[in-house]
Amino acid sequence: MSSIDSSQELLRIAHALADAAAVHSLRLFRTPLEVIAKADESPVTLADRAAETAMREILAAQRPGDGIYGEEHGAVGVEAAFVWVLDPIDGTRSFITGSPLWGTLIGLLRGGRVELGIVDMPVLGERWVGQAGLGAHRNGRPVRVSACASVEAARIFTTSPDIFGPADWEAFDRLSRRCAMRRFGGDCYSYAQLAGGTIDLVVESGLQPYDYLGPAGLIEAAGGVITDWAGRPLGLDSDGRVVAAATPALHQQALEILNA
Amino acid sequence: MSSIDSSQELLRIAHALADAAAVHSLRLFRTPLEVIAKADESPVTLADRAAETAMREILAAQRPGDGIYGEEHGAVGVEAAFVWVLDPIDGTRSFITGSPLWGTLIGLLRGGRVELGIVDMPVLGERWVGQAGLGAHRNGRPVRVSACASVEAARIFTTSPDIFGPADWEAFDRLSRRCAMRRFGGDCYSYAQLAGGTIDLVVESGLQPYDYLGPAGLIEAAGGVITDWAGRPLGLDSDGRVVAAATPALHQQALEILNA
Repeated sequence: MSSIDSSQELLRIAHALADAAAVHSLRLFRTPLEVIAKADESPVTLADRAAETAMREILAAQRPGDGIYGEEHGAVGVEAAFVWVLDPIDGTRSFITGSPLWGTLIGLLRGGRVELGIVDMPVLGERWVGQAGLGAHRNGRPVRVSACASVEAARIFTTSPDIFGPADWEAFDRLSRRCAMRRFGGDCYSYAQLAGGTIDLVVESGLQPYDYLGPAGLIEAAGGVITDWAGRPLGLDSDGRVVAAATPALHQQALEILNA
Repeated sequence: MSSIDSSQELLRIAHALADAAAVHSLRLFRTPLEVIAKADESPVTLADRAAETAMREILAAQRPGDGIYGEEHGAVGVEAAFVWVLDPIDGTRSFITGSPLWGTLIGLLRGGRVELGIVDMPVLGERWVGQAGLGAHRNGRPVRVSACASVEAARIFTTSPDIFGPADWEAFDRLSRRCAMRRFGGDCYSYAQLAGGTIDLVVESGLQPYDYLGPAGLIEAAGGVITDWAGRPLGLDSDGRVVAAATPALHQQALEILNA
Protein backbone atom coordinates (compact mmCIF):
# COMPACT_ATOMS: atom_id res chain seq x y z
CA MET A 1 0.00 0.00 0.00
CA SER A 2 1.37 3.39 -0.91
CA SER A 3 1.74 5.87 1.92
CA ILE A 4 -0.92 8.14 0.46
CA ASP A 5 -3.43 5.32 0.97
CA SER A 6 -2.24 4.53 4.49
CA SER A 7 -4.85 4.45 7.21
CA GLN A 8 -3.25 7.45 8.89
CA GLU A 9 -3.41 9.51 5.72
CA LEU A 10 -7.01 8.55 5.02
CA LEU A 11 -7.93 9.41 8.59
CA ARG A 12 -6.23 12.79 8.27
CA ILE A 13 -8.30 13.55 5.17
CA ALA A 14 -11.50 12.42 6.91
CA HIS A 15 -10.85 14.76 9.84
CA ALA A 16 -10.19 17.62 7.42
CA LEU A 17 -13.55 16.94 5.75
CA ALA A 18 -15.40 16.98 9.07
CA ASP A 19 -13.64 20.17 10.15
CA ALA A 20 -14.56 21.89 6.89
CA ALA A 21 -18.22 20.86 7.11
CA ALA A 22 -18.59 22.06 10.71
CA VAL A 23 -17.59 25.61 9.81
CA HIS A 24 -20.53 25.90 7.43
CA SER A 25 -23.14 23.97 9.39
CA LEU A 26 -22.56 25.70 12.72
CA ARG A 27 -22.84 29.11 11.11
CA LEU A 28 -26.52 28.60 10.23
CA PHE A 29 -27.56 26.66 13.34
CA ARG A 30 -30.25 28.53 15.26
CA THR A 31 -30.39 31.41 12.84
CA PRO A 32 -34.03 32.49 12.46
CA LEU A 33 -36.03 29.86 10.63
CA GLU A 34 -37.47 32.50 8.29
CA VAL A 35 -33.99 33.13 6.95
CA ILE A 36 -33.52 29.48 6.15
CA ALA A 37 -37.01 29.06 4.70
CA LYS A 38 -36.63 32.04 2.39
CA ALA A 39 -33.34 30.86 1.01
CA ASP A 40 -34.78 27.68 -0.46
CA GLU A 41 -37.74 25.40 -0.13
CA SER A 42 -35.57 22.75 1.45
CA PRO A 43 -34.43 23.98 4.85
CA VAL A 44 -30.74 24.17 5.55
CA THR A 45 -30.01 23.46 1.92
CA LEU A 46 -27.66 26.42 1.81
CA ALA A 47 -25.59 25.20 4.72
CA ASP A 48 -25.75 21.65 3.41
CA ARG A 49 -24.48 22.68 -0.02
CA ALA A 50 -21.75 24.94 1.27
CA ALA A 51 -20.50 22.24 3.63
CA GLU A 52 -20.45 19.58 0.93
CA THR A 53 -18.73 21.94 -1.51
CA ALA A 54 -16.02 22.58 1.06
CA MET A 55 -15.53 18.84 1.53
CA ARG A 56 -15.39 18.23 -2.23
CA GLU A 57 -12.76 20.94 -2.65
CA ILE A 58 -10.52 19.15 -0.16
CA LEU A 59 -10.99 15.85 -1.97
CA ALA A 60 -10.38 17.44 -5.39
CA ALA A 61 -7.10 18.86 -4.13
CA GLN A 62 -5.86 15.93 -2.07
CA ARG A 63 -7.65 12.82 -3.42
CA PRO A 64 -8.39 13.64 -7.07
CA GLY A 65 -8.66 9.99 -8.09
CA ASP A 66 -11.30 9.04 -5.54
CA GLY A 67 -15.03 8.85 -6.14
CA ILE A 68 -17.59 10.89 -4.22
CA TYR A 69 -21.18 10.07 -3.32
CA GLY A 70 -22.74 13.11 -1.66
CA GLU A 71 -26.23 14.10 -0.61
CA GLU A 72 -26.22 17.52 -2.21
CA HIS A 73 -24.03 17.31 -5.29
CA GLY A 74 -24.53 13.74 -6.47
CA ALA A 75 -22.14 10.96 -7.39
CA VAL A 76 -18.90 11.05 -9.35
CA GLY A 77 -16.38 8.27 -9.95
CA VAL A 78 -18.15 5.69 -7.79
CA GLU A 79 -16.26 2.92 -9.63
CA ALA A 80 -12.96 4.17 -8.15
CA ALA A 81 -11.09 2.08 -5.58
CA PHE A 82 -11.91 4.66 -2.91
CA VAL A 83 -15.30 6.38 -2.66
CA TRP A 84 -16.15 9.04 -0.07
CA VAL A 85 -19.77 9.04 1.02
CA LEU A 86 -20.77 12.42 2.43
CA ASP A 87 -23.76 13.79 4.31
CA PRO A 88 -22.88 17.31 5.46
CA ILE A 89 -25.94 17.72 7.71
CA ASP A 90 -27.72 14.52 8.68
CA GLY A 91 -30.83 15.21 10.74
CA THR A 92 -32.05 18.36 9.02
CA ARG A 93 -35.21 18.28 11.12
CA SER A 94 -33.12 18.35 14.27
CA PHE A 95 -31.07 21.15 12.75
CA ILE A 96 -34.00 23.40 11.91
CA THR A 97 -35.76 22.77 15.22
CA GLY A 98 -32.73 23.78 17.27
CA SER A 99 -31.88 20.30 18.52
CA PRO A 100 -28.16 19.49 18.80
CA LEU A 101 -28.64 15.94 17.50
CA TRP A 102 -27.62 16.53 13.88
CA GLY A 103 -24.26 15.54 12.51
CA THR A 104 -21.89 15.26 9.59
CA LEU A 105 -21.51 11.72 8.26
CA ILE A 106 -18.46 10.56 6.34
CA GLY A 107 -17.94 7.04 5.05
CA LEU A 108 -15.01 5.76 3.04
CA LEU A 109 -15.52 2.75 0.80
CA ARG A 110 -12.54 0.75 -0.43
CA GLY A 111 -13.52 -1.74 -3.10
CA GLY A 112 -17.17 -1.32 -2.12
CA ARG A 113 -16.71 -2.08 1.60
CA VAL A 114 -16.73 0.64 4.22
CA GLU A 115 -13.40 0.91 5.99
CA LEU A 116 -13.71 4.26 7.75
CA GLY A 117 -16.70 6.04 9.22
CA ILE A 118 -17.20 9.32 11.06
CA VAL A 119 -20.23 10.59 12.94
CA ASP A 120 -19.31 14.16 13.83
CA MET A 121 -21.60 16.09 16.20
CA PRO A 122 -20.51 19.73 15.98
CA VAL A 123 -22.85 21.15 18.64
CA LEU A 124 -21.97 18.43 21.13
CA GLY A 125 -18.26 18.69 20.36
CA GLU A 126 -18.12 14.93 19.83
CA ARG A 127 -16.34 13.31 16.90
CA TRP A 128 -16.92 9.57 16.66
CA VAL A 129 -14.46 7.80 14.36
CA GLY A 130 -14.20 4.14 13.36
CA GLN A 131 -11.55 2.60 11.19
CA ALA A 132 -11.35 -1.03 10.14
CA GLY A 133 -8.73 -2.81 12.24
CA LEU A 134 -8.06 0.23 14.40
CA GLY A 135 -11.20 0.36 16.54
CA ALA A 136 -13.54 3.23 17.29
CA HIS A 137 -12.94 6.43 19.23
CA ARG A 138 -14.90 9.37 20.57
CA ASN A 139 -12.64 12.42 20.60
CA GLY A 140 -9.67 10.11 20.63
CA ARG A 141 -10.86 7.88 23.49
CA PRO A 142 -11.61 4.24 22.66
CA VAL A 143 -15.26 3.19 22.60
CA ARG A 144 -16.87 -0.19 22.10
CA VAL A 145 -20.33 -1.64 21.67
CA SER A 146 -22.11 -3.32 24.58
CA ALA A 147 -22.14 -7.10 25.14
CA CYS A 148 -25.94 -7.29 24.88
CA ALA A 149 -26.87 -10.60 23.27
CA SER A 150 -30.65 -10.75 23.58
CA VAL A 151 -33.56 -8.72 22.30
CA GLU A 152 -35.24 -8.84 25.70
CA ALA A 153 -32.27 -7.03 27.29
CA ALA A 154 -31.75 -4.59 24.43
CA ARG A 155 -32.31 -0.86 24.28
CA ILE A 156 -33.51 -0.06 20.77
CA PHE A 157 -33.57 3.31 19.00
CA THR A 158 -35.04 4.62 15.79
CA THR A 159 -35.58 8.14 14.50
CA SER A 160 -39.38 8.19 14.28
CA PRO A 161 -42.38 5.94 13.61
CA ASP A 162 -42.89 8.17 10.58
CA ILE A 163 -39.80 6.87 8.71
CA PHE A 164 -41.42 3.47 8.19
CA GLY A 165 -44.02 2.34 5.68
CA PRO A 166 -46.87 0.25 7.17
CA ALA A 167 -45.23 -3.15 6.73
CA ASP A 168 -41.84 -2.01 8.00
CA TRP A 169 -43.52 -0.29 10.96
CA GLU A 170 -45.31 -3.51 11.85
CA ALA A 171 -41.97 -5.33 11.82
CA PHE A 172 -40.22 -2.63 13.85
CA ASP A 173 -43.09 -2.48 16.33
CA ARG A 174 -43.04 -6.28 16.76
CA LEU A 175 -39.31 -6.22 17.45
CA SER A 176 -39.15 -3.11 19.61
CA ARG A 177 -42.01 -4.19 21.90
CA ARG A 178 -39.90 -7.17 22.94
CA CYS A 179 -36.95 -4.96 23.89
CA ALA A 180 -36.14 -3.71 27.38
CA MET A 181 -36.54 -0.13 26.16
CA ARG A 182 -37.46 1.58 22.94
CA ARG A 183 -36.86 5.22 22.15
CA PHE A 184 -37.53 7.55 19.24
CA GLY A 185 -35.51 10.54 18.07
CA GLY A 186 -31.79 10.81 17.91
CA ASP A 187 -31.12 10.72 14.17
CA CYS A 188 -27.49 9.83 13.47
CA TYR A 189 -26.58 10.13 17.14
CA SER A 190 -28.22 6.76 17.77
CA TYR A 191 -25.35 5.11 15.89
CA ALA A 192 -22.86 6.92 18.11
CA GLN A 193 -24.74 5.72 21.20
CA LEU A 194 -24.59 2.17 19.82
CA ALA A 195 -20.85 2.49 19.13
CA GLY A 196 -20.35 3.77 22.67
CA GLY A 197 -22.24 0.89 24.30
CA THR A 198 -25.07 2.94 25.84
CA ILE A 199 -27.70 1.41 23.55
CA ASP A 200 -27.76 -1.97 21.81
CA LEU A 201 -29.87 -1.86 18.67
CA VAL A 202 -30.78 0.65 15.93
CA VAL A 203 -33.33 -0.27 13.26
CA GLU A 204 -34.35 2.11 10.50
CA SER A 205 -35.93 2.23 7.08
CA GLY A 206 -35.96 4.64 4.15
CA LEU A 207 -32.31 5.65 4.50
CA GLN A 208 -29.93 6.74 1.75
CA PRO A 209 -26.31 5.54 1.38
CA TYR A 210 -25.01 8.81 2.84
CA ASP A 211 -27.22 8.21 5.90
CA TYR A 212 -25.87 4.75 6.74
CA LEU A 213 -22.35 4.29 5.34
CA GLY A 214 -20.59 6.69 7.71
CA PRO A 215 -22.37 5.12 10.69
CA ALA A 216 -21.60 1.64 9.29
CA GLY A 217 -17.87 2.31 9.38
CA LEU A 218 -18.17 3.49 12.98
CA ILE A 219 -20.34 0.58 14.16
CA GLU A 220 -18.16 -2.13 12.59
CA ALA A 221 -14.97 -0.63 14.01
CA ALA A 222 -16.62 -0.47 17.44
CA GLY A 223 -17.26 -4.21 17.29
CA GLY A 224 -20.89 -4.14 16.19
CA VAL A 225 -22.78 -5.63 13.26
CA ILE A 226 -24.66 -3.57 10.69
CA THR A 227 -26.50 -4.88 7.61
CA ASP A 228 -29.72 -4.48 5.70
CA TRP A 229 -32.85 -6.26 6.95
CA ALA A 230 -31.88 -9.38 4.95
CA GLY A 231 -28.50 -9.56 6.68
CA ARG A 232 -26.49 -8.37 3.67
CA PRO A 233 -23.56 -5.96 4.04
CA LEU A 234 -24.40 -2.33 3.33
CA GLY A 235 -23.21 -0.65 0.15
CA LEU A 236 -24.20 2.08 -2.27
CA ASP A 237 -27.00 -0.09 -3.70
CA SER A 238 -28.65 -1.24 -0.45
CA ASP A 239 -32.40 -0.72 -0.07
CA GLY A 240 -32.20 1.73 2.85
CA ARG A 241 -33.34 -0.65 5.58
CA VAL A 242 -30.73 -0.94 8.31
CA VAL A 243 -30.23 -3.18 11.37
CA ALA A 244 -27.30 -2.27 13.61
CA ALA A 245 -26.60 -4.39 16.69
CA ALA A 246 -24.02 -4.65 19.43
CA THR A 247 -23.41 -8.37 18.95
CA PRO A 248 -23.89 -11.05 16.27
CA ALA A 249 -26.37 -12.91 18.50
CA LEU A 250 -28.51 -9.82 19.00
CA HIS A 251 -28.29 -9.00 15.29
CA GLN A 252 -29.43 -12.49 14.33
CA GLN A 253 -32.40 -12.38 16.71
CA ALA A 254 -33.42 -8.96 15.46
CA LEU A 255 -33.33 -10.13 11.84
CA GLU A 256 -35.46 -13.16 12.67
CA ILE A 257 -38.12 -11.08 14.41
CA LEU A 258 -38.15 -8.39 11.72
CA ASN A 259 -38.64 -11.03 9.03
CA ALA A 260 -41.03 -13.30 10.94
CA MET B 1 -41.94 42.46 49.35
CA SER B 2 -38.96 41.79 51.57
CA SER B 3 -35.58 41.68 49.90
CA ILE B 4 -35.16 38.00 50.64
CA ASP B 5 -38.18 37.37 48.40
CA SER B 6 -36.97 39.66 45.62
CA SER B 7 -36.81 38.22 42.13
CA GLN B 8 -33.02 38.61 42.12
CA GLU B 9 -32.67 36.67 45.35
CA LEU B 10 -35.00 33.89 44.20
CA LEU B 11 -33.11 33.66 40.93
CA ARG B 12 -29.82 33.41 42.81
CA ILE B 13 -31.17 30.49 44.82
CA ALA B 14 -32.50 28.78 41.69
CA HIS B 15 -29.10 28.99 40.02
CA ALA B 16 -27.48 27.56 43.14
CA LEU B 17 -29.88 24.62 43.01
CA ALA B 18 -29.11 23.91 39.36
CA ASP B 19 -25.37 24.17 39.99
CA ALA B 20 -25.60 21.72 42.89
CA ALA B 21 -27.62 19.19 40.89
CA ALA B 22 -25.25 19.25 37.93
CA VAL B 23 -22.29 18.19 40.07
CA HIS B 24 -24.04 14.95 40.97
CA SER B 25 -25.76 14.19 37.68
CA LEU B 26 -22.72 14.72 35.46
CA ARG B 27 -20.62 12.45 37.67
CA LEU B 28 -22.68 9.38 36.74
CA PHE B 29 -23.36 10.22 33.11
CA ARG B 30 -21.92 7.57 30.79
CA THR B 31 -20.54 5.46 33.59
CA PRO B 32 -21.03 1.79 32.67
CA LEU B 33 -24.69 0.86 32.77
CA GLU B 34 -23.91 -2.19 34.87
CA VAL B 35 -22.74 0.08 37.66
CA ILE B 36 -25.97 1.98 37.61
CA ALA B 37 -28.12 -1.13 37.33
CA LYS B 38 -26.40 -2.82 40.26
CA ALA B 39 -26.83 0.14 42.55
CA ASP B 40 -30.61 0.05 42.42
CA GLU B 41 -33.41 -1.32 40.32
CA SER B 42 -34.28 2.18 39.17
CA PRO B 43 -31.47 3.46 36.99
CA VAL B 44 -29.78 6.69 37.92
CA THR B 45 -31.65 6.68 41.21
CA LEU B 46 -28.40 7.24 43.06
CA ALA B 47 -27.49 10.31 41.04
CA ASP B 48 -31.09 11.53 41.19
CA ARG B 49 -31.20 11.21 44.98
CA ALA B 50 -27.82 12.77 45.60
CA ALA B 51 -28.70 15.71 43.35
CA GLU B 52 -32.03 16.29 45.03
CA THR B 53 -30.49 16.00 48.47
CA ALA B 54 -27.94 18.65 47.55
CA MET B 55 -30.71 20.95 46.36
CA ARG B 56 -32.75 20.38 49.54
CA GLU B 57 -29.75 21.19 51.70
CA ILE B 58 -29.44 24.57 50.00
CA LEU B 59 -33.13 25.27 50.53
CA ALA B 60 -33.00 24.13 54.17
CA ALA B 61 -30.16 26.56 54.83
CA GLN B 62 -31.35 29.51 52.77
CA ARG B 63 -35.14 29.14 52.39
CA PRO B 64 -36.21 27.17 55.48
CA GLY B 65 -39.82 28.40 55.32
CA ASP B 66 -40.46 27.29 51.74
CA GLY B 67 -42.16 24.09 50.65
CA ILE B 68 -40.51 21.48 48.44
CA TYR B 69 -42.07 19.08 45.94
CA GLY B 70 -39.37 16.77 44.63
CA GLU B 71 -39.28 13.64 42.53
CA GLU B 72 -37.08 11.61 44.82
CA HIS B 73 -37.78 12.74 48.37
CA GLY B 74 -41.45 13.69 48.22
CA ALA B 75 -43.37 16.79 49.32
CA VAL B 76 -43.00 18.96 52.42
CA GLY B 77 -44.72 22.25 53.25
CA VAL B 78 -46.58 22.53 49.97
CA GLU B 79 -49.02 24.96 51.65
CA ALA B 80 -46.22 27.52 52.05
CA ALA B 81 -46.26 30.76 50.04
CA PHE B 82 -43.24 29.55 48.05
CA VAL B 83 -42.88 25.95 46.88
CA TRP B 84 -39.85 24.66 44.96
CA VAL B 85 -40.64 21.88 42.49
CA LEU B 86 -37.56 19.81 41.72
CA ASP B 87 -36.63 17.15 39.19
CA PRO B 88 -32.91 16.51 39.48
CA ILE B 89 -32.69 14.33 36.35
CA ASP B 90 -35.58 14.60 33.94
CA GLY B 91 -35.20 12.19 31.03
CA THR B 92 -33.70 9.24 32.83
CA ARG B 93 -33.99 7.16 29.66
CA SER B 94 -31.90 9.71 27.81
CA PHE B 95 -29.47 9.72 30.73
CA ILE B 96 -28.93 5.96 30.82
CA THR B 97 -28.70 5.65 27.05
CA GLY B 98 -25.95 8.25 26.78
CA SER B 99 -28.07 10.94 25.14
CA PRO B 100 -27.34 14.53 26.22
CA LEU B 101 -31.04 15.46 26.22
CA TRP B 102 -31.68 15.10 29.97
CA GLY B 103 -31.93 18.03 32.31
CA THR B 104 -32.57 19.40 35.76
CA LEU B 105 -35.96 21.05 36.16
CA ILE B 106 -36.70 23.66 38.79
CA GLY B 107 -40.01 25.43 39.22
CA LEU B 108 -40.92 27.98 41.87
CA LEU B 109 -44.57 28.39 42.82
CA ARG B 110 -45.75 31.52 44.62
CA GLY B 111 -49.29 31.18 45.87
CA GLY B 112 -49.77 28.17 43.64
CA ARG B 113 -48.70 29.88 40.38
CA VAL B 114 -45.33 29.26 38.78
CA GLU B 115 -43.21 32.39 38.70
CA LEU B 116 -39.77 31.02 37.92
CA GLY B 117 -38.69 28.04 35.85
CA ILE B 118 -35.35 26.53 34.89
CA VAL B 119 -34.53 23.87 32.31
CA ASP B 120 -30.85 23.19 32.85
CA MET B 121 -29.02 20.98 30.34
CA PRO B 122 -25.67 20.11 31.91
CA VAL B 123 -24.17 18.16 29.00
CA LEU B 124 -25.12 20.84 26.48
CA GLY B 125 -23.95 23.63 28.78
CA GLU B 126 -27.28 25.40 28.31
CA ARG B 127 -29.26 26.90 31.19
CA TRP B 128 -32.71 28.13 30.18
CA VAL B 129 -34.30 30.43 32.77
CA GLY B 130 -37.70 32.10 32.79
CA GLN B 131 -39.00 34.50 35.40
CA ALA B 132 -42.43 36.13 35.44
CA GLY B 133 -42.15 39.72 34.24
CA LEU B 134 -38.46 39.38 33.43
CA GLY B 135 -38.54 37.27 30.30
CA ALA B 136 -36.61 34.12 29.40
CA HIS B 137 -32.91 33.63 28.79
CA ARG B 138 -30.54 30.94 27.58
CA ASN B 139 -27.19 31.39 29.27
CA GLY B 140 -28.11 35.01 29.90
CA ARG B 141 -29.18 35.81 26.34
CA PRO B 142 -32.86 36.68 25.79
CA VAL B 143 -35.03 34.09 24.05
CA ARG B 144 -38.64 34.20 22.93
CA VAL B 145 -41.22 31.86 21.49
CA SER B 146 -42.04 31.93 17.78
CA ALA B 147 -44.99 33.85 16.28
CA CYS B 148 -46.56 30.67 14.88
CA ALA B 149 -50.33 31.04 15.04
CA SER B 150 -51.66 28.01 13.15
CA VAL B 151 -51.48 24.26 13.57
CA GLU B 152 -50.74 23.80 9.86
CA ALA B 153 -47.54 25.85 10.20
CA ALA B 154 -46.49 24.38 13.55
CA ARG B 155 -43.59 22.11 14.43
CA ILE B 156 -44.81 19.80 17.19
CA PHE B 157 -42.73 17.69 19.58
CA THR B 158 -43.49 15.01 22.12
CA THR B 159 -41.25 12.55 23.93
CA SER B 160 -42.61 9.27 22.56
CA PRO B 161 -45.82 7.64 21.30
CA ASP B 162 -45.37 5.38 24.31
CA ILE B 163 -46.17 8.10 26.89
CA PHE B 164 -49.82 8.20 25.77
CA GLY B 165 -52.71 5.91 26.58
CA PRO B 166 -54.82 4.88 23.56
CA ALA B 167 -57.33 7.77 23.73
CA ASP B 168 -54.64 10.39 24.33
CA TRP B 169 -52.55 8.94 21.51
CA GLU B 170 -55.51 9.20 19.14
CA ALA B 171 -55.90 12.86 20.09
CA PHE B 172 -52.18 13.58 19.74
CA ASP B 173 -52.01 11.74 16.42
CA ARG B 174 -55.01 13.71 15.09
CA LEU B 175 -53.38 16.99 16.06
CA SER B 176 -49.82 16.20 15.04
CA ARG B 177 -50.75 14.91 11.58
CA ARG B 178 -52.12 18.37 10.78
CA CYS B 179 -48.84 20.04 11.76
CA ALA B 180 -46.05 21.04 9.38
CA MET B 181 -43.67 18.70 11.22
CA ARG B 182 -43.89 16.25 14.09
CA ARG B 183 -40.95 14.84 15.97
CA PHE B 184 -40.43 12.43 18.83
CA GLY B 185 -37.71 12.40 21.47
CA GLY B 186 -36.27 15.37 23.22
CA ASP B 187 -37.66 14.97 26.74
CA CYS B 188 -37.47 18.27 28.62
CA TYR B 189 -35.36 19.84 25.89
CA SER B 190 -38.51 20.22 23.78
CA TYR B 191 -39.68 22.94 26.18
CA ALA B 192 -36.38 24.75 25.76
CA GLN B 193 -36.74 24.55 21.99
CA LEU B 194 -40.25 26.00 22.31
CA ALA B 195 -39.00 28.81 24.54
CA GLY B 196 -36.26 29.54 22.02
CA GLY B 197 -38.64 29.74 19.07
CA THR B 198 -37.27 26.81 17.07
CA ILE B 199 -40.41 24.70 17.57
CA ASP B 200 -44.00 25.81 18.18
CA LEU B 201 -45.94 23.17 20.07
CA VAL B 202 -45.30 20.50 22.73
CA VAL B 203 -48.06 18.10 23.74
CA GLU B 204 -47.56 15.40 26.35
CA SER B 205 -49.43 13.13 28.70
CA GLY B 206 -48.63 11.18 31.86
CA LEU B 207 -46.36 13.86 33.34
CA GLN B 208 -45.78 14.64 37.00
CA PRO B 209 -45.70 18.16 38.54
CA TYR B 210 -41.89 18.06 38.67
CA ASP B 211 -41.87 17.29 34.92
CA TYR B 212 -43.98 20.29 33.84
CA LEU B 213 -43.73 23.11 36.40
CA GLY B 214 -40.11 24.07 35.72
CA PRO B 215 -40.81 24.08 31.95
CA ALA B 216 -44.06 26.01 32.59
CA GLY B 217 -42.16 28.86 34.24
CA LEU B 218 -39.78 28.99 31.29
CA ILE B 219 -42.49 28.86 28.60
CA GLU B 220 -44.66 31.56 30.17
CA ALA B 221 -41.71 33.91 30.66
CA ALA B 222 -40.73 33.33 27.03
CA GLY B 223 -44.14 34.53 25.92
CA GLY B 224 -45.80 31.15 25.38
CA VAL B 225 -48.92 29.50 26.75
CA ILE B 226 -48.89 26.27 28.75
CA THR B 227 -51.92 24.56 30.31
CA ASP B 228 -53.50 21.15 30.75
CA TRP B 229 -55.56 19.69 27.89
CA ALA B 230 -58.66 21.46 29.23
CA GLY B 231 -56.94 24.84 29.07
CA ARG B 232 -56.50 25.18 32.85
CA PRO B 233 -53.30 26.61 34.39
CA LEU B 234 -50.84 23.99 35.59
CA GLY B 235 -50.36 23.36 39.30
CA LEU B 236 -49.39 20.60 41.70
CA ASP B 237 -52.78 18.90 41.21
CA SER B 238 -52.97 18.89 37.40
CA ASP B 239 -53.67 15.61 35.62
CA GLY B 240 -50.32 15.37 33.83
CA ARG B 241 -51.58 16.27 30.35
CA VAL B 242 -49.77 19.31 28.98
CA VAL B 243 -50.22 21.57 25.94
CA ALA B 244 -47.52 24.21 25.44
CA ALA B 245 -47.77 26.59 22.50
CA ALA B 246 -45.95 29.60 21.10
CA THR B 247 -49.08 31.77 20.82
CA PRO B 248 -52.61 31.94 22.26
CA ALA B 249 -54.10 31.31 18.80
CA LEU B 250 -52.04 28.17 18.27
CA HIS B 251 -52.81 27.00 21.79
CA GLN B 252 -56.55 27.44 21.25
CA GLN B 253 -56.48 25.52 17.97
CA ALA B 254 -54.47 22.71 19.53
CA LEU B 255 -56.95 22.40 22.41
CA GLU B 256 -59.87 22.25 20.03
CA ILE B 257 -58.32 19.50 17.93
CA LEU B 258 -57.18 17.50 20.96
CA ASN B 259 -60.69 17.63 22.43
CA ALA B 260 -62.62 17.19 19.17
